[in-house]
Amino acid sequence: MSRKFHQHTKIRKKGLPPGTLIYTGYRTDKPSSVFSVQFTENKYAEQPYYRNELRKNPGLIWVDIRSLTETALISTIGDDFRIHPLALEDVLDTQQRPKLEEFDNGLFIILPNLTFKPETVEIVCEQIAIFIGSDFVLSFQEDPDDNFAHVRKRAQEGLGRIRKKGPDYLAYALLDTVVDGYYVVLDGIQTQLFDLEETLHRNGAEPEVKAGIFNLKHVVNHFRQKVLPLRDAATRLYRTESELVDTSNRLYLRDVVDHVAQILDGIDSQRDMLSSLESLYHAEASNRLNNVMRLLTVISTIFIPLSFVAGVYGMNFDNMPELHTRFGYFIVLSGMLAAMVGMLIYFREKRWI
Amino acid sequence: MSRKFHQHTKIRKKGLPPGTLIYTGYRTDKPSSVFSVQFTENKYAEQPYYRNELRKNPGLIWVDIRSLTETALISTIGDDFRIHPLALEDVLDTQQRPKLEEFDNGLFIILPNLTFKPETVEIVCEQIAIFIGSDFVLSFQEDPDDNFAHVRKRAQEGLGRIRKKGPDYLAYALLDTVVDGYYVVLDGIQTQLFDLEETLHRNGAEPEVKAGIFNLKHVVNHFRQKVLPLRDAATRLYRTESELVDTSNRLYLRDVVDHVAQILDGIDSQRDMLSSLESLYHAEASNRLNNVMRLLTVISTIFIPLSFVAGVYGMNFDNMPELHTRFGYFIVLSGMLAAMVGMLIYFREKRWI
Amino acid sequence: MSRKFHQHTKIRKKGLPPGTLIYTGYRTDKPSSVFSVQFTENKYAEQPYYRNELRKNPGLIWVDIRSLTETALISTIGDDFRIHPLALEDVLDTQQRPKLEEFDNGLFIILPNLTFKPETVEIVCEQIAIFIGSDFVLSFQEDPDDNFAHVRKRAQEGLGRIRKKGPDYLAYALLDTVVDGYYVVLDGIQTQLFDLEETLHRNGAEPEVKAGIFNLKHVVNHFRQKVLPLRDAATRLYRTESELVDTSNRLYLRDVVDHVAQILDGIDSQRDMLSSLESLYHAEASNRLNNVMRLLTVISTIFIPLSFVAGVYGMNFDNMPELHTRFGYFIVLSGMLAAMVGMLIYFREKRWI
Amino acid sequence: MSRKFHQHTKIRKKGLPPGTLIYTGYRTDKPSSVFSVQFTENKYAEQPYYRNELRKNPGLIWVDIRSLTETALISTIGDDFRIHPLALEDVLDTQQRPKLEEFDNGLFIILPNLTFKPETVEIVCEQIAIFIGSDFVLSFQEDPDDNFAHVRKRAQEGLGRIRKKGPDYLAYALLDTVVDGYYVVLDGIQTQLFDLEETLHRNGAEPEVKAGIFNLKHVVNHFRQKVLPLRDAATRLYRTESELVDTSNRLYLRDVVDHVAQILDGIDSQRDMLSSLESLYHAEASNRLNNVMRLLTVISTIFIPLSFVAGVYGMNFDNMPELHTRFGYFIVLSGMLAAMVGMLIYFREKRWI
Amino acid sequence: MSRKFHQHTKIRKKGLPPGTLIYTGYRTDKPSSVFSVQFTENKYAEQPYYRNELRKNPGLIWVDIRSLTETALISTIGDDFRIHPLALEDVLDTQQRPKLEEFDNGLFIILPNLTFKPETVEIVCEQIAIFIGSDFVLSFQEDPDDNFAHVRKRAQEGLGRIRKKGPDYLAYALLDTVVDGYYVVLDGIQTQLFDLEETLHRNGAEPEVKAGIFNLKHVVNHFRQKVLPLRDAATRLYRTESELVDTSNRLYLRDVVDHVAQILDGIDSQRDMLSSLESLYHAEASNRLNNVMRLLTVISTIFIPLSFVAGVYGMNFDNMPELHTRFGYFIVLSGMLAAMVGMLIYFREKRWI
Repeated sequence: MSRKFHQHTKIRKKGLPPGTLIYTGYRTDKPSSVFSVQFTENKYAEQPYYRNELRKNPGLIWVDIRSLTETALISTIGDDFRIHPLALEDVLDTQQRPKLEEFDNGLFIILPNLTFKPETVEIVCEQIAIFIGSDFVLSFQEDPDDNFAHVRKRAQEGLGRIRKKGPDYLAYALLDTVVDGYYVVLDGIQTQLFDLEETLHRNGAEPEVKAGIFNLKHVVNHFRQKVLPLRDAATRLYRTESELVDTSNRLYLRDVVDHVAQILDGIDSQRDMLSSLESLYHAEASNRLNNVMRLLTVISTIFIPLSFVAGVYGMNFDNMPELHTRFGYFIVLSGMLAAMVGMLIYFREKRWI
Repeated sequence: MSRKFHQHTKIRKKGLPPGTLIYTGYRTDKPSSVFSVQFTENKYAEQPYYRNELRKNPGLIWVDIRSLTETALISTIGDDFRIHPLALEDVLDTQQRPKLEEFDNGLFIILPNLTFKPETVEIVCEQIAIFIGSDFVLSFQEDPDDNFAHVRKRAQEGLGRIRKKGPDYLAYALLDTVVDGYYVVLDGIQTQLFDLEETLHRNGAEPEVKAGIFNLKHVVNHFRQKVLPLRDAATRLYRTESELVDTSNRLYLRDVVDHVAQILDGIDSQRDMLSSLESLYHAEASNRLNNVMRLLTVISTIFIPLSFVAGVYGMNFDNMPELHTRFGYFIVLSGMLAAMVGMLIYFREKRWI
Repeated sequence: MSRKFHQHTKIRKKGLPPGTLIYTGYRTDKPSSVFSVQFTENKYAEQPYYRNELRKNPGLIWVDIRSLTETALISTIGDDFRIHPLALEDVLDTQQRPKLEEFDNGLFIILPNLTFKPETVEIVCEQIAIFIGSDFVLSFQEDPDDNFAHVRKRAQEGLGRIRKKGPDYLAYALLDTVVDGYYVVLDGIQTQLFDLEETLHRNGAEPEVKAGIFNLKHVVNHFRQKVLPLRDAATRLYRTESELVDTSNRLYLRDVVDHVAQILDGIDSQRDMLSSLESLYHAEASNRLNNVMRLLTVISTIFIPLSFVAGVYGMNFDNMPELHTRFGYFIVLSGMLAAMVGMLIYFREKRWI
Repeated sequence: MSRKFHQHTKIRKKGLPPGTLIYTGYRTDKPSSVFSVQFTENKYAEQPYYRNELRKNPGLIWVDIRSLTETALISTIGDDFRIHPLALEDVLDTQQRPKLEEFDNGLFIILPNLTFKPETVEIVCEQIAIFIGSDFVLSFQEDPDDNFAHVRKRAQEGLGRIRKKGPDYLAYALLDTVVDGYYVVLDGIQTQLFDLEETLHRNGAEPEVKAGIFNLKHVVNHFRQKVLPLRDAATRLYRTESELVDTSNRLYLRDVVDHVAQILDGIDSQRDMLSSLESLYHAEASNRLNNVMRLLTVISTIFIPLSFVAGVYGMNFDNMPELHTRFGYFIVLSGMLAAMVGMLIYFREKRWI
Repeated sequence: MSRKFHQHTKIRKKGLPPGTLIYTGYRTDKPSSVFSVQFTENKYAEQPYYRNELRKNPGLIWVDIRSLTETALISTIGDDFRIHPLALEDVLDTQQRPKLEEFDNGLFIILPNLTFKPETVEIVCEQIAIFIGSDFVLSFQEDPDDNFAHVRKRAQEGLGRIRKKGPDYLAYALLDTVVDGYYVVLDGIQTQLFDLEETLHRNGAEPEVKAGIFNLKHVVNHFRQKVLPLRDAATRLYRTESELVDTSNRLYLRDVVDHVAQILDGIDSQRDMLSSLESLYHAEASNRLNNVMRLLTVISTIFIPLSFVAGVYGMNFDNMPELHTRFGYFIVLSGMLAAMVGMLIYFREKRWI
């Protein structure tokens, strides 16, 4: 998490009377854009703006708002579709946990759209809010980039089941798109993991590997924290007793639940990998230290005693008979050589060198 | 936890017959102050004292007691509003876990108001007790400082929904204020965490980093222990079947539950960060040791054998032919230099220097 | 746990037909004493022995047996009050887990009375068994010391609610007394913890700190193991559907449940503290090793190369021109000094010295 | 996990409209083969191809598809037996978690067939999908190798109960075959574990042991992740209220549940073993370092002081009276020897050598 | 676990049609023996063989089979008492988890009889299967040794309640006997634990302590894995709605549940002890390394600089004025001594020596 954004929005909002609509994210410099779509099985109409008259026509309405800076517009849309004020506040307060809330006139889902940035090793998190009504779906994307282009294109071209089904299926398609993005995050992290593993094998226990493990752990924990509450929310959506979700579509929601569970499995597996990687790192580092110490010990064990012998014969006593023998020097030299060779053999046998 | 206050109040209270009202905290030198407020949608009256006659007028009564040293006063208020003796005892015994209790005539909530002191790296904990009756709310603050000034101001100026709703909404406003304070604690800890991380990166594995991690772990565990039981209490409040909580206000209580869950998520994430920081610290320390050992080994490996050679030619044997050759000294010196350079190259290749 | 008593009573009892009443504890040399009390709101009579005729008078009977060595007496009392044989066996088998059992004619509770001995760093455990009947309470204390003197005094002097209420309130008073003792244990452990922490800060990573952590861990785990099953038993007592527990008294039992939960919170917090203390100990020890290694490295790095130089000029080659220069010695000496100073500056900059 | 295949199929499938049948595995070069069997208690007919007319005859039909590359064929079979499109998609998307889904016309089970490759220390995973209808069973094997040869042979030869029972028993036989394979995996891992343990005991803390532990941990975690969700699915199958499972056959399904639980017990036990092996490895490595350090210390402690003494008597001061005594040299030599022997005894007593 | 037996019986049984009765244990060389007992409150008859006619007489029949090698006999008995084939298979497949199964005509319990072998530090596991019918109990012991001699004796001599009660009480007596054996295992492990602790305190961090911890961990985990599923099975037996268990006997079954819980508490406590012992071992080992390093550092720090000084005055420069002063040698010697003493004082103050 970069330090810049860490202050919680609750604090920035402090002192304001509750119920004030205010966008609490940091993407404040981007204008909102609205995209209204209305379709039946045979008809398809889309407009790059929002008009209240839409609801006079028959057909499923999908209003997609990107960037949440224009709170007045959002407030208007909320009033037109009779969205509960607390839900609207949640849309704008962009540090919500994933959740499902059931209102009288609809279902309200919040979940994060996640992207993994390998350069900075962080997960960028954009809040998505979806409101499912009886004949409409509202989707709020925090970022101006369009995550739902594929879904719109499918509706436009009438591909698949999307124009034959109701708002529940459309919401499923949107959820599915967001959850599919999690697989990309999972893969991005996996790639980094493999890279770390290779670096560790190639370069040994270098500090940058440790830092990499540290950073990746942050990322995986962050990822998990974002996805974990979604399991609960998705399961509750799948089991909701609301009439807005048709029995024939429950299997699709079940699919979303399965995918979230699969993502969480993947995350757990990466946590396991990271912690074994960490323990491998430590073993590697301690092995390296061991090798260093062995070299030091081998050198010291061989030469310190020999130096002592040399020192003895460097003493200046008058009466040192060995010094005056003819082959004393050569005998001592040979003895030293023999000791050296003996110790080398000994260390070799102990597999130290 | 500072040692001074660690003795549990149960022990200090030992020997007293149960049912005795006695304040067990350590803020004993501050006089109590009472603040009574009564309002309807159109009316607002406040007094800096407490009178029993208040209940003769229509309107919601909010009595706010600050500092719990005057037990007689608290006893009187308790009698006037028919508070259960056990609840009054709990108000004064300031080491309660957060809890919700349902009485016949009201709901009783205990939760801590928490403040983080960065200088001493500790969480200061002030017990807040709230009693919700059919037409009144009692709030007891252990500390004489007023936590609820914002709420009173909103009621006074008629901002938001507070004067239109009943005691349940007022209690929600109080709870929300206390829980909002937890975000400040979370941010304070986060700041310390970032500082520790930076210090570790800048100065390496210095003992003060370790001590910082140790202290922060205490704080985070303390924080968690204070907030964890609140999740249960808040959930039970949100799901209570008491008539005192209006259905239309449940969503607000749901909001409190969500915030507590979010705080707990944040705490878990900080625990994760602390434990990876700790493991980073250890890796750093072991890396430092490694570097020290490498330097020692490099120096020893180079000079101990060379010293040995010098020692050999320092021996005083009569018959050492090399000593009398013309260039013996220079040859040995060159050999030593060559060995030195060779070993330096070897170590460089092994990336030791 | 002291080795002497570790053999489980089930083993010592092996081979005996089940249903045999036999005391399995180790406090075998102390005679039993019985204390019978009977009271109503207005009357109070106590006798230092047990008579069956008691039940002919109206009023609540409380028979308190201390020391369990006289099994015949216990058997008689059991028969008189129609206690189930299995319950009597459990009274005498003093390694029971805390539990609540519901019989047709009463409730049977087993829980430990715990005392912390700081000298030997161990928890002494005395089994307390309480049987609640319609008009009587039996309490069995394993140890001859009286834990319930306070309760008896309150009944005698008619203080508080004890003489106005039934056997359920009396049993609550007994349970409360036992659970209050746990706070003393918690405080005793806390004091030891603070002492350990101080010793660690003052003396560093000495082995006795480690041993202290090890012992305290044992104690805390032992404590936890004794209290954990009590939470379940106390909760079941609080929720029992037995007519013996009056609705108006449930809040008191709730109080016991809360206290047990608080004790367990305290234990968990101490486990956390112990494990961070342990990790602090390891960091301290590794830091100490680091300092030792640095000193060794500084000394070796400075003097080993210089010794080598000295060794070179101690060689006995005939032709060593430097030796015969006028200032050779002083130049070498100055060079050595310069190198020494240079290395000291280098190490100072690396913050090694 | 080999890097080659790690990209998740969801990503490879991205952009395709949902509902498209596409095989997402990597066994793409193998043609599908179909095997149709129809039998009653008295009759048995099998064909190495698939014809829709089969269902006109009475008897239980078992269609077994091996290799999933021919999606057209799979689509046809799906249509003929009225398999739900989502189930068919799941058959082809080969990274499903084990699961049970109940459709109106049948039960659908997905589980992995696992093989352990000791050479590469990895678990190869092949997805098996089984659809149980009222009078048919479809089985889809991802790999062209036949896992179900034994079952077919039993049906062919009329051994056991297989031809007397319905599709539920046949499905049980298939499940049982797959789950039996897990025991082989468990045994393969166990063998590797024993090998690692032996290597550790024989060769000490060599890096390859660490790598082996690391790899085996991966494998065991992978294994566990594959089997864990199966427990849930098998339990739900055993408890299903579907009419397709006869009460008399539930005990067989209970058997499968038991086996999965046993496998998971075995996996947990292996995880425990791996983590104690790891801790044994670390103890071994640190013990080895200890031994190295002790040798270094013994050598240094003996010879460094002695070398110092020799150095002293190698000094060239004019006035060093000891040098000119008659037995000075021999006294010093003897003193050195005595010191050496003394230190050796000291170290022996400290059990260092 | 000894390597010899580790292969799972499922693998050895592979290829055999299910339903084949085959003993899968390794006690294959011991002949089966059967022991039939029939008794009422007044009558008792026992025979060292099995006859089907037994059931013609009134009274409770207990057939006890020891050693499971004669599958034909077991099959006959199974048929006579109408035991479900799957239950019979489970009797012979001796790697079952503890479990309770309810059949129409009886309850079927499997649990292990455990023995701890201190010499090899392993738990030997013998499978016990008990079938409770309306007027009979079958017990199958894998080993020819008789575990139930005590129970038979009690029935024979009419001690206790055994002849007055039904098959449920008899089964309780058998279960109780097996569970009592677990206490012996617990005590055996405890003894080993105390021994390890003492060895650690006496000899320090020797490798054999580590190996002992490693082995004991295996044993405790193995023990736990065997007992854990029994808690579930025993609880289900205690709560069974089968008419075979009389309400008056439930308290006895409750007793078994309590004992299993107590055993599991003991196991958890031993796991805690083992892990603190392990951490104590590591602290001890690192403390030892610390001491070694300190000695090395003290020796080196004292003598390396002094040796350097000696080396300086051993140089052969012509012009070294100090050498020719009268007291040069003694001054240098005194300086060296002073430095030595100074450093010793310094190290003493730092508590290094």
